[in-house]
Amino acid sequence: MKCRKCDEKAVIHMRQHKLALCKNHYLDWIPKQTQRFIHDNNMFSTEDRILVAVSGGKDSLVLWDVLSRLGYQVDGLYIGLGIDGGNGYSAESRRITESFAAEHKLDLITYDIEEHEGLDIPTAASLTRRGRERPCSICGLSKRHIMNRVAIENDYDVLVTGHNLDDEAAVLLGNTLNWLTAYLQRQGPVLPTRSGLVKKAKPFFRFYERETAAYALLRGIEYMYDECPHADGAKSIYYKVLLNRLEADRRGAKLSFYLSFLRAKETMSFNSEGDDVERMLHPCTSCGQPTSTPDLCTYCRTWKEVRDRRETMLEQGIES
Amino acid sequence: MKCRKCDEKAVIHMRQHKLALCKNHYLDWIPKQTQRFIHDNNMFSTEDRILVAVSGGKDSLVLWDVLSRLGYQVDGLYIGLGIDGGNGYSAESRRITESFAAEHKLDLITYDIEEHEGLDIPTAASLTRRGRERPCSICGLSKRHIMNRVAIENDYDVLVTGHNLDDEAAVLLGNTLNWLTAYLQRQGPVLPTRSGLVKKAKPFFRFYERETAAYALLRGIEYMYDECPHADGAKSIYYKVLLNRLEADRRGAKLSFYLSFLRAKETMSFNSEGDDVERMLHPCTSCGQPTSTPDLCTYCRTWKEVRDRRETMLEQGIES
Repeated sequence: MKCRKCDEKAVIHMRQHKLALCKNHYLDWIPKQTQRFIHDNNMFSTEDRILVAVSGGKDSLVLWDVLSRLGYQVDGLYIGLGIDGGNGYSAESRRITESFAAEHKLDLITYDIEEHEGLDIPTAASLTRRGRERPCSICGLSKRHIMNRVAIENDYDVLVTGHNLDDEAAVLLGNTLNWLTAYLQRQGPVLPTRSGLVKKAKPFFRFYERETAAYALLRGIEYMYDECPHADGAKSIYYKVLLNRLEADRRGAKLSFYLSFLRAKETMSFNSEGDDVERMLHPCTSCGQPTSTPDLCTYCRTWKEVRDRRETMLEQGIES
Repeated sequence: MKCRKCDEKAVIHMRQHKLALCKNHYLDWIPKQTQRFIHDNNMFSTEDRILVAVSGGKDSLVLWDVLSRLGYQVDGLYIGLGIDGGNGYSAESRRITESFAAEHKLDLITYDIEEHEGLDIPTAASLTRRGRERPCSICGLSKRHIMNRVAIENDYDVLVTGHNLDDEAAVLLGNTLNWLTAYLQRQGPVLPTRSGLVKKAKPFFRFYERETAAYALLRGIEYMYDECPHADGAKSIYYKVLLNRLEADRRGAKLSFYLSFLRAKETMSFNSEGDDVERMLHPCTSCGQPTSTPDLCTYCRTWKEVRDRRETMLEQGIES
C-alpha cells in the first residue's frame, strides 16, 4: 500500500480514517492532528507553561516529544514510585525518562515518593488493608496529588497526560457499565482549573494506542515497554480487552463510542454528587491542597495511616 | 442443592440472588416477584384492562400466564406477520398462541397484517430498499403501530410486553455504546401514556431469560422455541453475546448494569431531540395515530411506498 501523500511505501494504515501514510508523512501527521485537538478543545496556547506527567512509557514520552516539536513550553514531571517487580521497573523508567530529557535538552522535575514520605509505594500499600492485594489505589491517589501539587507550586498553567483513546474509552466503559454519573460528568479531554486544582488536558485522547506506539517506533524513541508489574488483572485491562473485541468487529468502534459520549454530554446534565463535591472543596489542614473530605485530604490521611501502622509494627518488633 | 424454603431438591439456582428453589416454590416465586415489580413501578392495578402482546415465544406466554394467575384482566394480542422461514414460523407461533388461550380460557385478539395490508412482512420488506437484506425494520415499526392502535381502539389501559432483562440490557448497551440520548431518555420499564399513545409496561424487566424459560418448562407451557428466521445476525443478538461474557465474568453484571442505569437516569436530564419529538406529536392524516413526521405516520408512509412499488412492478409485469 502506498502513502496517500506521496509515492513512498505506507508504514501504517489507519482503517478508521481510511488513511495510509509513509514514515515521514506519519511523523508529520501526528503533531498536526495533536495541534488540531489542542486547538479544537481549547487546551492551551504557546503562552502557557505546560507540565507533562512522564512515566517513561510510550504515550507520555511521545506526548512530550510532539508538544516540544510543536513549540510549546513544556517541562516533564517524573514521579518515582519505587516499584521493582523483579525487573527494576521504576529505576528503568526513570533512566529512560532522564535520558530522553537530556537528549532533547528538556527540563525534568523528578519527585521521589520514598524521599518525601519515607516509604515506597509497594511498602506503603502493604501497610493498608486494600493495598496488600493491589497497590494501585494508593499509587493512583498519590500520583494525582503530587502532579497537582507540583504544577500549582511551580506555577504551571496546565498539566497534560498521555492518556490515549484506548485508555479513555476503557475508563468510559467502566463508568458506563456501572453508570457512575459523578465520574461521567467529569470525564473529558479537558478539566478546567478550579480553586487550587490545575487545569488538566489529554491531547492524545483521539489517538489509538497503536498510533502512539507507531510514532515512538518510527521516531526512535526509547520507552519502557513493560507494563507496571501490578497492572495485571486490573479492571481497566478487562475493559480494554472488551473494547478490542468491539473494535475487531467494527472498525472505529472505540472512537465512535468516545466521541458520541462527548457529543451526548453536551446535551445531558447530571444532578449527581459531583456538583456538591465541587462546591465543598476546602484546603487540607496539612498540605493545603483542595479536598472534599473533612480536615485531611485523602493523600495526607492515607499516608498518615501508613506511617502510624508502620510505627505500631516497629514497636511490636514486626518487620513489614 | 436444596430449596431455600423447604426440603425438596432445588431445580434452579439464581446465583445473583443467592437463591435456590424447588419447582413449587419457583412457580410461586416468579408471580410474587412480578407483583412486586408491577407495584414498585406503578405499572397497573387489577382495575385496569391490560393487553399483552403475545408472539408465541416463552416470555410473552409466561407473562400472560403469570398476569392471569395474579388476577389481572389481561387479553392477548397476536400479530400475524406471515413469516415462513422454511419452518412455518408464523403459522406455528399462531397455533401455539391460540392453543394457550383456549386451554386457559383467555381472550385473544388476532391481527393479520396480510389481511389488512394485502402483503405479508417478508414480501413487503422485499419491496423496500433496506428491507431486502433484513425485514426487521418494517416488521418492528408495524408491530409497534398495530399494538398501539389495537390497544387504543379497544380501550385498553396498558399494553404489556414480555421483554426480559437480557432484552432490556442488550438494547441499553446498544443505546449506550452509541450514546443515543433520545433513546436512553425513553428507556425504562414503564412508558406513561401521552396523546394517543397507550401506557406501556414491561413487568419482566428484572428477570433473566433463563428464569422465564425455566418457568415455562416447569409450568409445562408449550412455546415457540425457534427464533424468528430473520433474527440471525441482528445487532441485539450481538449485544446479548457481549453481555453474556460480562455476566460469565461477574454474576449479576446484567442486572447491575440495567438497575444502575435506572438509578442514574433519575439524576440525569437530557436536552435531546426526544423532548421536541414529544411536543410535536400530531395525528397521522391517514390513520389518525400520533406521529412526529409530517402528514403520514411512518407506518402509513412505509406501507404506501410498498403498495406503490408493488403497483409499478405489476404494471411492468415483474413479479416480486
